[in-house]
Amino acid sequence: MLLYVYLIAITAEAMSGALAAGRRNMDMFGVAFIAFITALGGGTVRDMLLGNYPVTWTQHPMYIYLTISAGLLTMLIARFMHRLHSLFLILDAMGLIAFTVIGCNVALRLDYETPVVIMAGITTGIFGGILRDLLCNRTPMVLRKELYASVSLLVALLYLSLLELGVNHDVTLLASFSFGLALRLSAIRWSLSLPVFSYEPGRWND
Amino acid sequence: MLLYVYLIAITAEAMSGALAAGRRNMDMFGVAFIAFITALGGGTVRDMLLGNYPVTWTQHPMYIYLTISAGLLTMLIARFMHRLHSLFLILDAMGLIAFTVIGCNVALRLDYETPVVIMAGITTGIFGGILRDLLCNRTPMVLRKELYASVSLLVALLYLSLLELGVNHDVTLLASFSFGLALRLSAIRWSLSLPVFSYEPGRWND
Amino acid sequence: MLLYVYLIAITAEAMSGALAAGRRNMDMFGVAFIAFITALGGGTVRDMLLGNYPVTWTQHPMYIYLTISAGLLTMLIARFMHRLHSLFLILDAMGLIAFTVIGCNVALRLDYETPVVIMAGITTGIFGGILRDLLCNRTPMVLRKELYASVSLLVALLYLSLLELGVNHDVTLLASFSFGLALRLSAIRWSLSLPVFSYEPGRWND
Repeated sequence: MLLYVYLIAITAEAMSGALAAGRRNMDMFGVAFIAFITALGGGTVRDMLLGNYPVTWTQHPMYIYLTISAGLLTMLIARFMHRLHSLFLILDAMGLIAFTVIGCNVALRLDYETPVVIMAGITTGIFGGILRDLLCNRTPMVLRKELYASVSLLVALLYLSLLELGVNHDVTLLASFSFGLALRLSAIRWSLSLPVFSYEPGRWND
Repeated sequence: MLLYVYLIAITAEAMSGALAAGRRNMDMFGVAFIAFITALGGGTVRDMLLGNYPVTWTQHPMYIYLTISAGLLTMLIARFMHRLHSLFLILDAMGLIAFTVIGCNVALRLDYETPVVIMAGITTGIFGGILRDLLCNRTPMVLRKELYASVSLLVALLYLSLLELGVNHDVTLLASFSFGLALRLSAIRWSLSLPVFSYEPGRWND
Repeated sequence: MLLYVYLIAITAEAMSGALAAGRRNMDMFGVAFIAFITALGGGTVRDMLLGNYPVTWTQHPMYIYLTISAGLLTMLIARFMHRLHSLFLILDAMGLIAFTVIGCNVALRLDYETPVVIMAGITTGIFGGILRDLLCNRTPMVLRKELYASVSLLVALLYLSLLELGVNHDVTLLASFSFGLALRLSAIRWSLSLPVFSYEPGRWND
């Protein structure tokens, strides 16, 4: 089950990367490149942080083809994508949750301590989007808008707590997805966000 | 001794990260995230460059809690921080020196050659600030303002020279801190900086 | 032969990094740092992705000295460099091709599958330039302008195909360089570029 959600997730993330590249007027190569990095960059950073070699996608060339194709396809269908708005947001939210759960599992398998497992989940969940925004020269959105990165954090906490309590793994997955999806979609619907920190520059730390 | 200075250093760096995030109106999660990366990113990049796995902070969850707490605390006390201006600059300078010395030691332990040891010290010293500025979408300050990165370079050179000469390690540390602190604070006080390279774009490499 | 081309290539890349740093009014340290990262960053990212430790330049301090010297020298001769315009573009193109071929060879030696070998070639070819543009706070040019990253892709494909066909290695190298150089210089001469994807932001994925 998780594998299928994962494939859908990297496709959705690749498409979001392609759209961001389109806003910077990148060429076909740039679109494919940003799509690839948005979809697989989070897992790559996680693997490099944890020393989990070989990096996952290098063992699954299919992921390379899938994300690049999704990116290029987006160039063709971008003009119709606003009609798929809601669907896209749901896929993106499922991707965030799937990435988080998979990231936690990788770190668990390598016997890292709980705080590192949570960081691995969040890194997998949000770093693709951060790299996308860096490469498109804008301040990372996942750190500024409606609950997104914090959904990843809460999903990781719920997932690990249920595992710790010995709950059946399928139930744990189902609970994590239901909770995460409900939270993320509520955040979009009602513009829920964390308190924002606005700091005016003083002279002392300019 | 170096451990206490290190803990103070990552706290000071986390606070500088939080302030930078505040200028980009990031939410609480973004503030904590940038604080964490500013404080621990330099060491992380060093460990990944040198293949020094597991990455240091993954073995010390306490560093995660400390930097995130310092970042969140900064949200509360930011308005009073200008009163602590001088203290903050001193802590930041001590952090730069501590990071540099620690980075050199990691590379020495792994038997890298001297130029790589120096690069490891500088990377530990300045890369957290570079990642902070990248994530906050601004040109890295450590490469543009009063002597900062070059303090890291000179401290690394002094530290390694004294070690090479067989000077007692405590004396070496004391000399490195005194020299680095004096240089950095003089640079701030009298706006000392390296020659700047200003290049006007021509058509040939636009 | 490839080694000499490589040394010329990292020198040319270091100079392009120094010029980009000059446009951001960086100090001497910043210039040397950006020069170093532009020249050696692509190979570093490749080595970290593939788990190819120790990272290449850490075993060749001479590369560190060469790139830093080239960066600092650029500060002195920048005003005369427009006269060397064509030479510089040729060196840069040769560098792109040399980096690509070397990147493919590293991944081949580690027994990665073909798509990963190609990615390793492209990463080595273009990531130095991407890091340069990130650190200088601009959208990566290699993803937007005349054929550049795609030259790297096509050179990788040609090189691997000829190797696969059992063609002599010297002939393969010569063919890859001739083809890549002709393609890149034609792209500059006639402004050849890939189709660009321009996407106007809608409200749904702002």
